[in-house]
Amino acid sequence: MPNPLDEAHYALALANRIVAYEGVLDGFGHISMRHPGNPNRYLLARSRSPELIEPGDILEFTLDSELVVPSDVLPYGECVIHGEIYKARPDVRGICHHHSAAILPFCITGNELKPVNGLGSVMGVTVPFWDSREEFGDTPMVVTKPEEGASLARALGPHWMVLMRRHGATVAGATLQEAVFRSIHTHRNAELQLRSAALGQVSPLSKGETELACAYSLRERPMGRAWEYWTTRLAKAGELPPRVS
Amino acid sequence: MPNPLDEAHYALALANRIVAYEGVLDGFGHISMRHPGNPNRYLLARSRSPELIEPGDILEFTLDSELVVPSDVLPYGECVIHGEIYKARPDVRGICHHHSAAILPFCITGNELKPVNGLGSVMGVTVPFWDSREEFGDTPMVVTKPEEGASLARALGPHWMVLMRRHGATVAGATLQEAVFRSIHTHRNAELQLRSAALGQVSPLSKGETELACAYSLRERPMGRAWEYWTTRLAKAGELPPRVS
Amino acid sequence: MPNPLDEAHYALALANRIVAYEGVLDGFGHISMRHPGNPNRYLLARSRSPELIEPGDILEFTLDSELVVPSDVLPYGECVIHGEIYKARPDVRGICHHHSAAILPFCITGNELKPVNGLGSVMGVTVPFWDSREEFGDTPMVVTKPEEGASLARALGPHWMVLMRRHGATVAGATLQEAVFRSIHTHRNAELQLRSAALGQVSPLSKGETELACAYSLRERPMGRAWEYWTTRLAKAGELPPRVS
Amino acid sequence: MPNPLDEAHYALALANRIVAYEGVLDGFGHISMRHPGNPNRYLLARSRSPELIEPGDILEFTLDSELVVPSDVLPYGECVIHGEIYKARPDVRGICHHHSAAILPFCITGNELKPVNGLGSVMGVTVPFWDSREEFGDTPMVVTKPEEGASLARALGPHWMVLMRRHGATVAGATLQEAVFRSIHTHRNAELQLRSAALGQVSPLSKGETELACAYSLRERPMGRAWEYWTTRLAKAGELPPRVS
Repeated sequence: MPNPLDEAHYALALANRIVAYEGVLDGFGHISMRHPGNPNRYLLARSRSPELIEPGDILEFTLDSELVVPSDVLPYGECVIHGEIYKARPDVRGICHHHSAAILPFCITGNELKPVNGLGSVMGVTVPFWDSREEFGDTPMVVTKPEEGASLARALGPHWMVLMRRHGATVAGATLQEAVFRSIHTHRNAELQLRSAALGQVSPLSKGETELACAYSLRERPMGRAWEYWTTRLAKAGELPPRVS
Repeated sequence: MPNPLDEAHYALALANRIVAYEGVLDGFGHISMRHPGNPNRYLLARSRSPELIEPGDILEFTLDSELVVPSDVLPYGECVIHGEIYKARPDVRGICHHHSAAILPFCITGNELKPVNGLGSVMGVTVPFWDSREEFGDTPMVVTKPEEGASLARALGPHWMVLMRRHGATVAGATLQEAVFRSIHTHRNAELQLRSAALGQVSPLSKGETELACAYSLRERPMGRAWEYWTTRLAKAGELPPRVS
Repeated sequence: MPNPLDEAHYALALANRIVAYEGVLDGFGHISMRHPGNPNRYLLARSRSPELIEPGDILEFTLDSELVVPSDVLPYGECVIHGEIYKARPDVRGICHHHSAAILPFCITGNELKPVNGLGSVMGVTVPFWDSREEFGDTPMVVTKPEEGASLARALGPHWMVLMRRHGATVAGATLQEAVFRSIHTHRNAELQLRSAALGQVSPLSKGETELACAYSLRERPMGRAWEYWTTRLAKAGELPPRVS
Repeated sequence: MPNPLDEAHYALALANRIVAYEGVLDGFGHISMRHPGNPNRYLLARSRSPELIEPGDILEFTLDSELVVPSDVLPYGECVIHGEIYKARPDVRGICHHHSAAILPFCITGNELKPVNGLGSVMGVTVPFWDSREEFGDTPMVVTKPEEGASLARALGPHWMVLMRRHGATVAGATLQEAVFRSIHTHRNAELQLRSAALGQVSPLSKGETELACAYSLRERPMGRAWEYWTTRLAKAGELPPRVS
């Protein structure tokens, strides 16, 4: 019988590969989940590109982003992004940090990302914008110190997605599956908004539409249909993570 | 000997996969056809992503979008789009509802979609524009109520394609094959028009050119050549639907 | 021992597949070559999508675009494009007619296509622009009548490529291989020019640079390197045409 | 036991294929490395498209770009780009010359390429711009004469990347791996900057951020993670170069 932690390792490897296969993550970026049995821990792979991650790559961290079992395996330099958000937001159980080519233009220009179709509404009514330069001045453009992670978590506040100036985005979810769904569909919304800008004035969803469409989209039916779709695409491409024996 | 209904199930699964493979449909959206033997029924898959659909997924609906054989299989939430158009338009035998990345920028900005080359003329001289907000106020940005479907069908009127503000497009055809042809070539026309907008002023086809080119394009030769092309591409990718035994 | 006509059939099927694989041709468009043994004939496939063409699909035409061996196989409706240009231009031995997504924006807006890098110079110093509406008024946006083909050939004049308003491009070559090379590299030049337009003012090659770069690019070394590259890519994708036994 | 020169041949073939697979190189362009045992020599393939190169294609050149072992194998016409830079810059051990579709728009418009995210900082604070026309007037838009290569090397100066007007880019690295990393990530930075231009004003990294992020990105961890990622992608696609026996 599979135990929940093995299942979590597999699910997290799968989530990494899905979000990479759908074009949001590339060689960099990462997805984590809160530990299924201990809310004071989170799971995140060792420093490796998302589309290559296997269940055996998953490490366990405290919310201070310390490895639970010390080892010489290298974690991501930016693991504090995950730890500080899990610490600040008990309702968050999945986080994706990425630098997608659709989201970056908004991070580079400061243009506001807005929901332009039903699925894009999962970004929520407000998407905060964080600029590391304001609090930390010149940095190597990575979030590696606990105080930087905590600053980002404060910027996220009660929302579900935060844009990072000249850097990327961090996307949270009430579940790992929701973080995946939100990462992919806000990426696609950004692509649509970018393409629309070539034509003229964008007409986004109203606040009411955003709230209604977000609630509708995060139900089991659309989330499940998308999960089957992404998993089958990965399977057809021969990219499912290996099962550990 | 294959019976017509089995053939229809296969053709509809094939149509879903073609339109997905050619980049118009993604994880969401759907194609239906009128029942080949009973004009008061239509066929549409259970709630599943188009590129995964198999003949065994196809369900039968009344024009009021009720399942003919009650079951606990989940239909698409938006099946009323299909039912209400089949009800209003006896000449329509295939319908595709989609959210393509080429069409959406027109739905998001309100810019007019126009035929810019011969094949694009299959959109017709007029492409109406429907905004759910006008009649229904804030909604979850899906068409799930019969009155919403009926409103969309009225907007479509005698035309063959309707744009849906901040949502997508619904494309009809005199046959399933024509709905597929129109979905793909209007998607490509939209992409061309979008790319042209980066260069300067678009010079669309005249009304006369549109009518002549539309009639020319919907003949058996170009439609058949395209069908062979799309089916062969799908076959080479190993993506033809399975034959039910 | 292979005879020259068999070799020509194979080369023409290969050329069709190369230009399709490299993204210039899609379900429509076609490539022809002058008959290797009889300058008053040309070879062109039956009406079929370019990426599917096999040596056995190749038909032989007079310069008046009549089938040499009458049959009930369907030729392309636009074969007169080829016949009329071969008639007017004895130095042309290969022709490609296409509707590429990079070239079309220039045909739709009337913006001038210009050489923006070394390989793009193979378009030549002048790329004429033909609008069927000027001489023929409203048409179905296809060139199916001998007088339409002759008008297009006059517009081409002594040049190597002609843009067709709201339609596509016709590209000629001193050899079949040159027509392929010119089709692909002018398509890529168009894509570069289109992408550059998003940034600012395009600075094209001077007339002198264009002439020098064109002569340099059409030598055996670059043409041969490209041919090996395209053929190998096709082979790796399993898309080489079958050899007839 | 593998000898260092065999390893260098393999590494250079691999580097060519990686940079091609990641979309920076196409049928043209080339990568070289300084000879691992003799700083007065460099290694570069015979005239062949990058994605096809095998270890057996690698040739050895003096810094005057003469073949060390005369043969009738054809070298690239532009090998002087490599020789002249290795001559002028003892700290350079890898060079890539390319014409990527993301970089070219900057070469065509003269718009300044700027670091817009952390990884893009590897272009350095200054990216010089070279226009062959200024010193040499009309040319075939290739760098084939030693004095042209030397002029380009002077333009590069102490920097790591130079844009070439209406031509492409030449990218150097302290190692072959660094040249690959810089070629791919500056290409992606260019794509992001181009896409951002459609939205509004680009806000690049500050000089301090660029310096810090560049130093951070060129460490072993990110370079190694990227190398594993690119090599695995190539392996999955069946595109690793053959090992010579």
